[in-house]
Amino acid sequence: MGNTFGRLFRVTTYGESHGGGVGVVVDGCPPGLALAEADIQAELDRRRPGQSRIVSQRREADRVEILSGVSDGRTLGTPIALLVRNEDARPEAYAGFRDLYRPSHADFTYEAKYGVRAWAGGGRASARETVGRVAAAAIARKLLRERWGVEVVGWVEQVHRLRAAVDPRRVARRQVERTPVRCPDARAAARMIRLIERTREAGDSVGGVVGCVARGVPPGWGEPVFDKLEADLAKAVLSLPASKGFEIGSGFAGTVLKGSEHNDPFVVRGGRVRTTTNRSGGVQGGISNGEPIVIRVAFKPTATILQPQRTVDRRLRPAVLHARGRHDPCVLPRAVPMVEAMVALVLIDHAMRQRAQCGK
Amino acid sequence: MGNTFGRLFRVTTYGESHGGGVGVVVDGCPPGLALAEADIQAELDRRRPGQSRIVSQRREADRVEILSGVSDGRTLGTPIALLVRNEDARPEAYAGFRDLYRPSHADFTYEAKYGVRAWAGGGRASARETVGRVAAAAIARKLLRERWGVEVVGWVEQVHRLRAAVDPRRVARRQVERTPVRCPDARAAARMIRLIERTREAGDSVGGVVGCVARGVPPGWGEPVFDKLEADLAKAVLSLPASKGFEIGSGFAGTVLKGSEHNDPFVVRGGRVRTTTNRSGGVQGGISNGEPIVIRVAFKPTATILQPQRTVDRRLRPAVLHARGRHDPCVLPRAVPMVEAMVALVLIDHAMRQRAQCGK
Amino acid sequence: MGNTFGRLFRVTTYGESHGGGVGVVVDGCPPGLALAEADIQAELDRRRPGQSRIVSQRREADRVEILSGVSDGRTLGTPIALLVRNEDARPEAYAGFRDLYRPSHADFTYEAKYGVRAWAGGGRASARETVGRVAAAAIARKLLRERWGVEVVGWVEQVHRLRAAVDPRRVARRQVERTPVRCPDARAAARMIRLIERTREAGDSVGGVVGCVARGVPPGWGEPVFDKLEADLAKAVLSLPASKGFEIGSGFAGTVLKGSEHNDPFVVRGGRVRTTTNRSGGVQGGISNGEPIVIRVAFKPTATILQPQRTVDRRLRPAVLHARGRHDPCVLPRAVPMVEAMVALVLIDHAMRQRAQCGK
Amino acid sequence: MGNTFGRLFRVTTYGESHGGGVGVVVDGCPPGLALAEADIQAELDRRRPGQSRIVSQRREADRVEILSGVSDGRTLGTPIALLVRNEDARPEAYAGFRDLYRPSHADFTYEAKYGVRAWAGGGRASARETVGRVAAAAIARKLLRERWGVEVVGWVEQVHRLRAAVDPRRVARRQVERTPVRCPDARAAARMIRLIERTREAGDSVGGVVGCVARGVPPGWGEPVFDKLEADLAKAVLSLPASKGFEIGSGFAGTVLKGSEHNDPFVVRGGRVRTTTNRSGGVQGGISNGEPIVIRVAFKPTATILQPQRTVDRRLRPAVLHARGRHDPCVLPRAVPMVEAMVALVLIDHAMRQRAQCGK
Repeated sequence: MGNTFGRLFRVTTYGESHGGGVGVVVDGCPPGLALAEADIQAELDRRRPGQSRIVSQRREADRVEILSGVSDGRTLGTPIALLVRNEDARPEAYAGFRDLYRPSHADFTYEAKYGVRAWAGGGRASARETVGRVAAAAIARKLLRERWGVEVVGWVEQVHRLRAAVDPRRVARRQVERTPVRCPDARAAARMIRLIERTREAGDSVGGVVGCVARGVPPGWGEPVFDKLEADLAKAVLSLPASKGFEIGSGFAGTVLKGSEHNDPFVVRGGRVRTTTNRSGGVQGGISNGEPIVIRVAFKPTATILQPQRTVDRRLRPAVLHARGRHDPCVLPRAVPMVEAMVALVLIDHAMRQRAQCGK
Repeated sequence: MGNTFGRLFRVTTYGESHGGGVGVVVDGCPPGLALAEADIQAELDRRRPGQSRIVSQRREADRVEILSGVSDGRTLGTPIALLVRNEDARPEAYAGFRDLYRPSHADFTYEAKYGVRAWAGGGRASARETVGRVAAAAIARKLLRERWGVEVVGWVEQVHRLRAAVDPRRVARRQVERTPVRCPDARAAARMIRLIERTREAGDSVGGVVGCVARGVPPGWGEPVFDKLEADLAKAVLSLPASKGFEIGSGFAGTVLKGSEHNDPFVVRGGRVRTTTNRSGGVQGGISNGEPIVIRVAFKPTATILQPQRTVDRRLRPAVLHARGRHDPCVLPRAVPMVEAMVALVLIDHAMRQRAQCGK
Repeated sequence: MGNTFGRLFRVTTYGESHGGGVGVVVDGCPPGLALAEADIQAELDRRRPGQSRIVSQRREADRVEILSGVSDGRTLGTPIALLVRNEDARPEAYAGFRDLYRPSHADFTYEAKYGVRAWAGGGRASARETVGRVAAAAIARKLLRERWGVEVVGWVEQVHRLRAAVDPRRVARRQVERTPVRCPDARAAARMIRLIERTREAGDSVGGVVGCVARGVPPGWGEPVFDKLEADLAKAVLSLPASKGFEIGSGFAGTVLKGSEHNDPFVVRGGRVRTTTNRSGGVQGGISNGEPIVIRVAFKPTATILQPQRTVDRRLRPAVLHARGRHDPCVLPRAVPMVEAMVALVLIDHAMRQRAQCGK
Repeated sequence: MGNTFGRLFRVTTYGESHGGGVGVVVDGCPPGLALAEADIQAELDRRRPGQSRIVSQRREADRVEILSGVSDGRTLGTPIALLVRNEDARPEAYAGFRDLYRPSHADFTYEAKYGVRAWAGGGRASARETVGRVAAAAIARKLLRERWGVEVVGWVEQVHRLRAAVDPRRVARRQVERTPVRCPDARAAARMIRLIERTREAGDSVGGVVGCVARGVPPGWGEPVFDKLEADLAKAVLSLPASKGFEIGSGFAGTVLKGSEHNDPFVVRGGRVRTTTNRSGGVQGGISNGEPIVIRVAFKPTATILQPQRTVDRRLRPAVLHARGRHDPCVLPRAVPMVEAMVALVLIDHAMRQRAQCGK
């Protein structure tokens, strides 16, 4: 019962990896926004597998259909339902380990919780579930850009031990999209790609870190004390498959600074209050301060690997799992649009909450 | 409008650092729980300032009063309202910087958001706000312990660059409470205390990391896809004042492992499914797997320092802030009960959600 | 932003009368329920137009598709998405009054609210919107019946001035379905049918009252003080198109009784506490008392009539509306499954809330 | 777990008739509103017992204290906590029927639900619970009046069989307050008062109908399809103690009109779209149309009567209840501010929701 996100821009996703399809209902979208399927498709295309040689080779066209909420090319203010049909589903590929609990997958926990599970392809625990999030966020991003002047840019900052140098104040999507690994540091990107290819060949997987910035957020978004902006951002990205950590601003690195080193001095620039440094990451006391909002998200190495693994089956007998097929040796490149999506969903919701209570 | 936490065990806090008091209303508490003010007072006493020489020397008795929801020593199932009166408030101590924006505090953002702020003592952004959380969580913890056999233990794992060695499978509260810094590693604790004292003398502050474990959580708690257990935990602790990062299980460190190193193999032990390692941190696919749930939370150095700082005032003029008074050179010891509180609030809510949908 | 109903059994509907389709996402459905499209189709068939000569002659097959949440014929505990494609849509039929505000329709208010509206067929304000409700409630009813032994039966109690005699303790669905007007009092039913036919011939419309009972609800459902059972029931049915009033138990008629006449005496029967009368309508203090829950819902005469009507257009000029086409001279027969649906959605939600908090 | 009302202007009430006190936390109140305890006290004084000889003679001063959320006489945007201490509590007055289930009271259902109950004075089921609602609504009404130009006026329209003639377009509070029965029709008021006095002398009770109007609501408030304005109004008033029915506009009386008689013709007056009649009651399709919003609420006769009544006790033995003390022979006069309160809480929430989504 946790498939709705947001208080005012409310997103409810549905769908398993196998079955009729995956999708989302967006309730609360402001009326009058120009919206076509192409707006949403563009974001879905960044998320789907098969885009490049370093991600899963599954072929899913992922064509989105707008079922409701849009008329004459404009949003009506009523719920927008989006549907993406499942294709290329090969449930038989999973038949072999229908009774096994794949290590660090959700097979065991889903069954423990619900007493039943969709055994094919991970069911609701599949990353395919994020189609609905990315589709909904395409609408959120359009609103943020057109009505509030906010842009959200994510990138791959680290793969395994390889780290990129990225300036969150300036990084642009076209730099990110230049390489299939979605790392705007060209030199680091080349090494990351080689690493991912070698990892695939070894039947293994790697994790890493996605960075993301939101620029243009005005001071005042965020709802203390529980719905602080960083709290909602943390929840948003920790709800993504394979994420294990979250930082805002100085994050864990900030714990080795003294207060005198860490505080962000205020100055006036361009007639408004700014900070000379941004260790706060754009949020103070749970409310945006007008500086770029900068976060980092840790993703573990993909649980699916092609090496034999020790496990147990549903009757509690020891077993060995031999996975096959088209796995993602590294989720990071595809995680970029997912992180951006969740950041956008948080921001649009807080924009509307601020307008509701404070009228601005 | 973000002052309620939880879906079924619903906690609504209120109160500024100055004014009538701080408190909480808990709606949804199961009936029939034995509850007295002493149960709540014990947790509040761990949170309040003035407990030891390494925390703020403000003297607040923080006596809790149960206003409703309990009769003949038992919870009624109706809302439990708790009130702690404010005392020892010295608003005049803040008069000097009423018009200044204190760096890395929430003065500027509250004013940007609301157009008005409670200038004395940080208002709602004060850590005093957490009184309501800790009070509510005392009830949650009692329920978790008595009805589900779950215990939650937090500790200080790092202060500035000093790190402790703590085993989350075994650490007990009495070890944590043995030192005023709440670090169960005695040797590290001694060094942390000295560092905090030196930091206070220098008018500076330090941050660090709090670790926390929940033991005894059965498999099945957590509500994919948005209300995954780790997502709600991340939100919970990132809503605490001064927190900047969250990890579950392997966290950021897990990003430098290969999948073949990171996956937790399943085995059968004691007739049930266990994992031999716990890089998942007790949660897989957003649902508890029965292993200890282990998280880490980064806290920045306290924003209040006694050194002069560059800033601006409300009329956008440059200014220098000279803070005085009784500051906390390190929030970590007092953050331990706060982190435990938020973890307990997440867990009780998910216990009830699991019961609602899956009947167990 | 009001398209979700329920706290634990959460129903989110979408869809306009024209466009891709209408449907619903159900989040929170307990796992393990046997569920097939046929279970849902049976309820939809009772709702759809064209069933008999006394309702709208629009032909809509209203075939439901389960998109997610069911595998191997059982609910998974994940969101159940249901889709019904729109057919037989004739938007051109509405082109003539695209710029007119139809009296007592929602054309004007939707436009005032959203600044835009789906002009064809009433858009989201069309009774077609209730497809999603009835589909979701088919699942709720199955759960209520199989897991809690609760049955919900509605009937037409009044059409214009014609009143039926119905005993809520005994009325059965097969009696209700015996006549196209869904009135179990055969003599009254015959007169109602004649009245509706004469009304249609006159190009006019009539309203009336739907009664509904829920039997088998155990004592203890309902959540004071705001989510009392009667409060949620009132909201549920007042959210249906054309409804104007709600009563529980003695309702408005009870206002002319003295307390000494109105109170329901308690007695013990069959080893449990019962009342000898049921003026409370099965609810006391907002909580079910084990007696049948009995409500009545007033529906206004259909706003669409085939007589010329005075109105204004979007440019604020006087105009005359000449509606044509296939209108429902009386919504009452089709309102029966809608009222039952809303009652079932309230009850399943409260069943789950009771289990969450009180463990039973 | 149903003690919170509203989505954006969120009201959480607490408190039993006996114990520390009753009160409310308001989360989401816009900042900058001038607010003093006197603003709230004025409304509480209209609600409390002992105001006149025709209501309960309990003496409760009901002094409200603002605990938080207001500084320098202005709301801060943070939660506003209000507390009213309980006084004049005589729990011993209830000791005699501690083990009896009072007919048409909530003793039995609370115990069935929670397994425990506050036996003194009705606990949470006491009308004293409405103190929190009325206090919160005093803030809502001030906002509605000052920021949206909306006024809410309620009155007693019927007591037992006595009906008043009241014009909802013009009735003013000062007319309502002219008599202790709160009926603006002076002739009817005099007869109602006599009836209530005779009823009290007979140890009996009477019910009736409260009417209420909201004037000045702009077109566009209300959130289809579930949170239609009339749906939320119905829920709001049906959550009040002793209410049994709700009507908007033509209500049940509208069911005996033909569509040609019932539809409200549109005209243009004063440059805006109006209706010549108001059978819709100010709401069409769940959204306000700019006309006065007119509702009626049925209240049953008070359950407490001073005549002996047949009942059972907790051990399921037959018993006779002899109630004594200071009962309200008619709740209607005190129900007027309660109905107004609930209407105001619904309206402020919808005003904020409209601003959030549609920016106006």
